Amino acid sequence: MRTKKEGNQTVFFENPPHILSTNAIAGSKESQGPLGDSFDETVQDDMWGEKSWEKAESKFMQQTVLSAIKKSGFTPSDIDYIFAGDLLNQCTSTNYGIRVFSIPFIGLYGACSTMGLSIKMAAMAIDGGYADRCAAVTSSHFCSAERQFRFPLEYGGQRPPSAQWTVTGSACVILDKDKGEAKIECATTGKIVDRGITDANNMGAAMAPAAIDCLTAHFADTGRTPQDYDAIFTGDLGKVGKSIVIDQMAENGYDLTENYNDCGCVIFDESQDVHSGGSGCACSGLVLCAHILPKLYSGEYKKVLFVPTGALMSTTAVQQGESIPSIAHAISIMM
Amino acid sequence: MRTKKEGNQTVFFENPPHILSTNAIAGSKESQGPLGDSFDETVQDDMWGEKSWEKAESKFMQQTVLSAIKKSGFTPSDIDYIFAGDLLNQCTSTNYGIRVFSIPFIGLYGACSTMGLSIKMAAMAIDGGYADRCAAVTSSHFCSAERQFRFPLEYGGQRPPSAQWTVTGSACVILDKDKGEAKIECATTGKIVDRGITDANNMGAAMAPAAIDCLTAHFADTGRTPQDYDAIFTGDLGKVGKSIVIDQMAENGYDLTENYNDCGCVIFDESQDVHSGGSGCACSGLVLCAHILPKLYSGEYKKVLFVPTGALMSTTAVQQGESIPSIAHAISIMM
Repeated sequence: MRTKKEGNQTVFFENPPHILSTNAIAGSKESQGPLGDSFDETVQDDMWGEKSWEKAESKFMQQTVLSAIKKSGFTPSDIDYIFAGDLLNQCTSTNYGIRVFSIPFIGLYGACSTMGLSIKMAAMAIDGGYADRCAAVTSSHFCSAERQFRFPLEYGGQRPPSAQWTVTGSACVILDKDKGEAKIECATTGKIVDRGITDANNMGAAMAPAAIDCLTAHFADTGRTPQDYDAIFTGDLGKVGKSIVIDQMAENGYDLTENYNDCGCVIFDESQDVHSGGSGCACSGLVLCAHILPKLYSGEYKKVLFVPTGALMSTTAVQQGESIPSIAHAISIMM
Repeated sequence: MRTKKEGNQTVFFENPPHILSTNAIAGSKESQGPLGDSFDETVQDDMWGEKSWEKAESKFMQQTVLSAIKKSGFTPSDIDYIFAGDLLNQCTSTNYGIRVFSIPFIGLYGACSTMGLSIKMAAMAIDGGYADRCAAVTSSHFCSAERQFRFPLEYGGQRPPSAQWTVTGSACVILDKDKGEAKIECATTGKIVDRGITDANNMGAAMAPAAIDCLTAHFADTGRTPQDYDAIFTGDLGKVGKSIVIDQMAENGYDLTENYNDCGCVIFDESQDVHSGGSGCACSGLVLCAHILPKLYSGEYKKVLFVPTGALMSTTAVQQGESIPSIAHAISIMM
């Protein structure tokens, strides 16, 4: 029996699933950022030879899955389930990107929290005894996201300081029952949190309350403090959201000033004109594969809390005056 | 250890999760159909007093979850996870419908297969030891789906004979570790199947290959034949898709002429001018709650194979010349 207590959002895995391999493919702007040399592959043509941004994003996901499976030493037919989702309407890049693989498919929608949601569900499938090996994957693309969620690029709209820059790329993690160095120790499933933010150009403020809710639940459930982790990374809150998290968590009695950062503040640097920072499903995914896991493998970190956040925003709902519901999922990864 | 064999898409649950309660709320057209008297509630005003179809659909889901939990004898805080998704961009009706509940949330995207996907994932969470009790829910709405996927209603477009009618309503199933009569025996996770259909008005033809692939995998994995079930229901293929399934399964060596029907052919009758039949996430959900489960409870059925199907269609991709990828998930429900 696993150890989820009544009324508790956190499950500890009895046999923590292992990270067998990962792959991260990033776009051109990301290749010029601080993690530029750490991605498995970078693509300078953001269309990647395709005829639309959506097709390009699908290709990012397809190639990322292909490379992650290749690096695992297995073939697609050895993968029991693929857990995947993305930001586009009907998870377009997922459905079109992975249809070639013929792997049993669990479609997820967690917006930019998808890397956390997919790893968590894959870990549950493996530890629960339903699978030996699973893929967790997500993607995002600046151009497909801008035109879907905000304005056509050709419009050349001004971006306010609170706006973030959707990361172009895809990240895939292959989890295995017993092969691989890093392990998924436990996971905290988030609740939908909506504090009334209606500004689609201030996702950090919309998502920060979900990160705070999930972090607070994680620490309460586990009896841990932030200091029990070598590092804590929220996913794509950017500078605005990150400062809200630090302030509010301090009020909740948790000090995040020492070992906390946000994936949106890691993937780009100040000179890249991205305003509040990076965002998009690929943001936390790429930072996990190209920054967090390498530091676990090198021994710099022993245990990390990875907390991707997602704005469950619908442009239709926002145009109807609705606010932006958000979610976060926390995963403890250890060596 | 659960009993999923290598390369096999089907898992048998060690301790089959029970269906503790269900709730089905249907719209006005559905209330006039063959199952009109069997829904828990019907709503004659498809706007349900709200200002938009999307808000109305959110209300359908919210009220359905509320009633299902109430009927279970528990409260929202007793539900460990809610597995949910719908057809709208970014799963709008889900995110806005259930944000009030403060239940750890797993967002799914399986289009019209969501009732199957959500029940399967909830069953895995319970049998895996991660939860005592889960909710699985989905919704759809004729008006919100038409304007998103096809034409504005005001345009009054002609519907070809192969078109289906998106069901308005929501269905919720509460699964429990050990309370409840019917049980989820096993589940077969589908793969994405795309046979090149590009006509968004012929979803039955687009989805039938996914149903055939999933049914064939289920019978191969389990060594069963269609005759091992009292009834088999695919989800929302309509008349066109149903006849493709019967023909093609016969070629694959499985006779479906005796005990097979499609949820899209059950929910409306010929006089309702729905052309090929019903569709939408709520179609298989409402038929499960108002038709299939009552026949299990009454003893008419002992074991049923429930196979909701989903067209993972994106209007953006279809406008870019893409075909429609589809999926199906099979669940064996027994008394």
